[in-house]
Order: sequence, then structure tokens, then C-alpha cells
Amino acid sequence: MEQRLLTPGPTPLPPQVREALARPIIHHRTSQFQQVIKESEQGLKEIFQTKNDVFILASSGTGAMEAAVANLLSPGDKAITIQGGKFGERWTELCKAYKAVPIVVDVTWGKAIDPKLIAEKLAADKDIKAVFATLTETSTGVDTDIKALGEVVRNTSACLVVDAISGLGAVDIQTDNWGVDVVVSGSQKGLMLPPGLGLISVSPKAMKLVAESKSPRYYFDLKAAKKALDKTDTPWTPAIGLMIALNESINLMKKEGLQNIFKRCKLEGEAIRQAAKALGFTVFADPNCMSNAVTAINVPAGLDGELMVKTMKDKYGVTIAGGQAELKGKVFRAAHMGYINKEDIIFALSTMETVLDEMGYFTQHPDIKKGAGVSAAKKVLG
Amino acid sequence: MEQRLLTPGPTPLPPQVREALARPIIHHRTSQFQQVIKESEQGLKEIFQTKNDVFILASSGTGAMEAAVANLLSPGDKAITIQGGKFGERWTELCKAYKAVPIVVDVTWGKAIDPKLIAEKLAADKDIKAVFATLTETSTGVDTDIKALGEVVRNTSACLVVDAISGLGAVDIQTDNWGVDVVVSGSQKGLMLPPGLGLISVSPKAMKLVAESKSPRYYFDLKAAKKALDKTDTPWTPAIGLMIALNESINLMKKEGLQNIFKRCKLEGEAIRQAAKALGFTVFADPNCMSNAVTAINVPAGLDGELMVKTMKDKYGVTIAGGQAELKGKVFRAAHMGYINKEDIIFALSTMETVLDEMGYFTQHPDIKKGAGVSAAKKVLG
Repeated sequence: MEQRLLTPGPTPLPPQVREALARPIIHHRTSQFQQVIKESEQGLKEIFQTKNDVFILASSGTGAMEAAVANLLSPGDKAITIQGGKFGERWTELCKAYKAVPIVVDVTWGKAIDPKLIAEKLAADKDIKAVFATLTETSTGVDTDIKALGEVVRNTSACLVVDAISGLGAVDIQTDNWGVDVVVSGSQKGLMLPPGLGLISVSPKAMKLVAESKSPRYYFDLKAAKKALDKTDTPWTPAIGLMIALNESINLMKKEGLQNIFKRCKLEGEAIRQAAKALGFTVFADPNCMSNAVTAINVPAGLDGELMVKTMKDKYGVTIAGGQAELKGKVFRAAHMGYINKEDIIFALSTMETVLDEMGYFTQHPDIKKGAGVSAAKKVLG
Repeated sequence: MEQRLLTPGPTPLPPQVREALARPIIHHRTSQFQQVIKESEQGLKEIFQTKNDVFILASSGTGAMEAAVANLLSPGDKAITIQGGKFGERWTELCKAYKAVPIVVDVTWGKAIDPKLIAEKLAADKDIKAVFATLTETSTGVDTDIKALGEVVRNTSACLVVDAISGLGAVDIQTDNWGVDVVVSGSQKGLMLPPGLGLISVSPKAMKLVAESKSPRYYFDLKAAKKALDKTDTPWTPAIGLMIALNESINLMKKEGLQNIFKRCKLEGEAIRQAAKALGFTVFADPNCMSNAVTAINVPAGLDGELMVKTMKDKYGVTIAGGQAELKGKVFRAAHMGYINKEDIIFALSTMETVLDEMGYFTQHPDIKKGAGVSAAKKVLG
């Protein structure tokens, strides 16, 4: 049975990436691999929309988040963490792990942060070292207005740090234009790779904090990473295979064009949202912050959402995701980023309707016709 | 030009591993991936020769070394670090990074540690929490007698921690029989995978230190790893593709048999050493501690070793490694572990002789005939 993966990480691998992963391995202390480093560095700068160094770590995204916290904060340092979902909470947990003092700004899950709140906190305490935010909150399907946060943070002494693990390469983030000091990402979302690369771009303003930080670190030490990168090298053995495949992803993204990718992800998201509406579902996120990379849909009363997700996968080979943490059983989520095309979206929606039919959904809701979701999506996708 | 890789990490990828890496990616929170975790856990226990949990981290080997230090030691804790090469020194650096107090036992590079020295240090200070050693010191081609160290450490309150990044799956390490508390490894050596997995087995004695450690950590926190593994899960997104490929490696290793692999690596090492002798070279390591996974050969006076290594690679596609750190330019190194067979060894030696001939080596040494190395190696390999 053909498998279709619409989970918000990992996303499907393009054939060019799969071919690159299957190549014989090369040694990493060679001019051949230095060329790989150079190309990925240049390509990532375009995707991160920055002139800053982008460090490539052999880790998943959480490792890159830890790199941000451990390198920017010393024990006792204060930092704002914006948490409106499971991954926002991770910033708070990381700050606590490193004995920094998180000033937690709770956002109701599914809602947008009001940047004024952050401005007030920063104005009230000049010692705040950093503001930790999330571009796309994978657990809720919310995109944060990073541009607005940048305007609030850029003229203070604090650094703006954004988790763009979900979102990068799907949702616009203009690192330099918007004054984002640190952008963290991973390989298994918009970059269309298997998980295993953590990425982190660091501004000169943030590099000052890196130089000052007293937090213990070694593997994720960005001073060591910087020293190595300046020699087109890595401090430890890099994830060679993934980095070679990354250059294939970068080539594909260049061919499509970053703006076109953003448009496609947005359109696919809109198709899913219109399909949801036609099926009588509602989107979890508020309309002003619905994500262009992942959509969380509320499980309607009377429907066993977990069974629906399981049946779609086990019987029809279509994998979407259930809810995480406090949203477990309450939402299901579909990604519209990376190597997911219009056909995948239509196929997934069609499968969902088949499963809903088997579960008696259309009998219980005679006003909703099987096929309404696919039809609404097709209208959007053209 | 066909490439042959005889570097001590990464080692070449078997076709079965390359095929697995090229498969479509699957989601990690599925019963399908739980099966992957179960199989790799069971297989790794056989390879680590342990009943302890083996945690699989998305990192390179250095990340797993950091996991050992951060989870076992608190700031101020004392630990012995045995350093007889670049990677032994890494233990010391990691202890310092985590503000632990390393009691450094220097071993002349190329020599074996005298376990009595460790016994004396442990007897003199009952507060020593751990002894950090290296199974195969990649920079010098020395294997440490871990069994003897185990006898010295096992009846003290200290934990024995062994870096088996190079060595595991090539050199015998009987984790449980020898009383090794923590074994750290990586994917790109004896396990025949690309780099990107860090592995760490932890004994119940070491888990007590994990529970007590006050060092900051999150991504490498073994309490989180244990909690997840008990549910056949991982705390963060795992390196899915590499873990699926790992199970292919494990299958290949089971088919060959661990003891047969050890014998093969030893025989290939002996072939390289006999070839070196026939060519008038000497091995860097002392005869009582020559590694069965990697051999470092002294660059003889009058030979440009770096040029030889470079020419072998650029002109003939055979990659061996030069020296690291203080041995840069003084030795060259060849691996005999992982997916490196007799033919690779003969091909590499033959290429080396061709390059030596081009560099005038046989003219300068008329008593040594071109072909002497290959001939000596063939005698060993049969």
C-alpha cells in the first residue's frame, strides 16, 4: 500500500533527497566535504533570509533549541518565554534546565500573542536577556507574527530567539529584515529531510551573549562551532549524509523559489481549512493566526478522532497526526509544508471522508455530503 | 573513479544500509516505529554485550560522551580521565566544561595504561565518581584493556565509563562481564552507518549517579530518555532514517556473528601491520596495545606522509587518514572495522605502494621491493 505522510514532521522525502541519502559516504575532513559545507551554508542563508552564520548541528531541533538557551543565557539570567503550546513550553523547560529565570508569558492555546505584552515586560525590566518565541506552534497550528515581535525587541538590549523548526521553508521569516537574532530549525519539516540536523542562525548581537554565557556546554558550544565554520569545518563529526542530502533540498527549494513555496503552503492550508469547514469541522487556531505550515482541526463531538487517524493510517496508508499534550484526542493535525503537494492533500481529504463514512459520520450529519471536503479543497487549489 | 574509504570513521556503508536510508520516511509516533525501536534496542544489547538499557541519541559520538559526563557528574565531582590521545583528552575537556574536577592520568601516546595506576588513584580518594577511558583511541591506534580496568573499578564506588565510539563492533567489549557501567558509541564506525547516532548504555550503578547529577541538561537528559524508552519511545524527534538503517546493520552483524567480526578486524589489522613492516614502516602503538580497529603507522623520515595520503585519495580514490593533533604529519591511519573487507585492504595497500613508487620511495630504499606490502598482507589474509 502506498504511504502518504502529512504529519507536521517528518514530512515526505523528495526522490532527489532519497537518492542522495543512498550515496556512498565520504570523509568529512576533505576538500570534497568542505564544498558541501560551503554550499549548504550559502543555501541556508538564503532560506533563513540572513547574512548571519547558520550553524549545522548533528541533532534534532530540540538540540538546536538547547544550543540557543545554553549559549545565550547564564544561570540567573532572565528571559521571556512565550508559550502558547507544547513547543513554546519547551523554551521555558530549557531555561529552567539551565537555571535561567523564565518570565513566562502564557498565551491561550490557539490564540496569537499580543506584542504589546512583550513590549511592556521588556520596558519594565531592562535585564531581560532574550525573548523566546515560536514561528509555527506545531501543537496548535498557530503562526506567530514574528515581524511584530521583532519591532518590539530590536530596539532593546534583549535578543529575539525564534523556534522555526516547523515553519522555516514554509512560512516567511525575514531574519535580518525583521531583526531576529537567533533562528532555530530542524531538517525534517520544510527542508524535506529526515530528522537529524539542528540548524541555528546567530546575529552579532546574540554572539555577544554567546561570548558571555557561563552555562556549561560542549557539544552545542557555538564558540567551537564558529571557530570551525570559519575554517569551513565542524567541531565534531557532522551528520555527513544528511548534509549532502540538504544540498539537494536546497537546490529543489531554489528551483521552486522561496516566495512560491510560501504561497503553495498557504494555499494548501487554505484548502484544508475550507475542506474542514465543508465537513462541519472547525479549525483550532483563531482566524488571525492560522498557520500556513500545519493546521489543527477540532475533533467534533461524537467523533472518535484517534480512531479516525488510526484507520486512515492502518487501512489506507495516510498518516496525519493526532493532538499532543493537552490537545490529545481533541484535535487532529495535517501538515502543508515540505514535499507535500496538491494531490497529497486531495488524497488525504478523500481518505478522511471515506473513513468518516465508515464511522457513520455522514449518517449522523445528513446535511453534510461525502465529497464536500474534497470539493471545497479542489476549489481552492484550482 | 571508484572510491574506497578506509578512514577510522566514517566507514563504508553496506548496500543494505544504503537501501534503507533511501526508503520513504515514516512517522516516529507510530507502532511501526516502535517496532524499529524494539529491534534496535534488542540488537544493540547484543552488540554492547549488556542487559542495560542502550539509549539512542540523535547526535554524533561526542554528544553521547557529553551525555555521560552531564548525567553522571555534578559540578565539583571528581573523576579520573585517562588520556593517551585526542579522544581521551575529550573526556577531560568535557569534565571541565561541566565544572567537574578531572584527575588526569596521562598516558604516553601509543602506550597502554597501567591499570594499577588507576587502582592507586581510586584507593587514595574514595570520592571519585567515575573513571573515563577509551576502548580504541582513534588518534593513536591503541586499544585499552577494558577488562583489566573493569577489575580495578568494579569493586569501588566509582563508575567505569568507556568511549567505544571507535571499537564497538570491531573490538571485544563485554560490558556486563567486565563491569563497564557506561559504554558510549557512535554510528559511523563498527556499526557501518553514516554519522548521526550517539549510543550510550547505562548500568543500574550509573543510573544512581544520573538521578543525583545536578548538571544542567535537557536534550541529553538520560532520565527523559529512560522514561521514554520504557514506553518504547524517544523524548525528542529521533533520527528516524538512521535508526531504520541501524536495524539493517544489526542484521548484517548478526549474520556474520560478533566473534567472527572481531576475528576479521584483528586479521585485517595484522595484515596492515605486516605490510607496514615489509615496507620498512613501523606501527605507532606499542605491540601490547595495537588496536584491532585502526592502525596508525609512523611516517618514515624522508617521506611526505600528507602528500602520500592526498595522492592516494585524489589520484586513486583511496581515502586513509592522516594524523590528528600532535600526530599531524607524523602518522597515517587506516581503519579495519565495519564494512571494510580483505579486498579493500589489499587494494589500499597496492595503491599505497603505487604512490610510494611515484614518490621515489623504492628508489631511496633499494632493499624494499614494490609489492612487498601487498605480499605480506596476502600471507596474513590467506
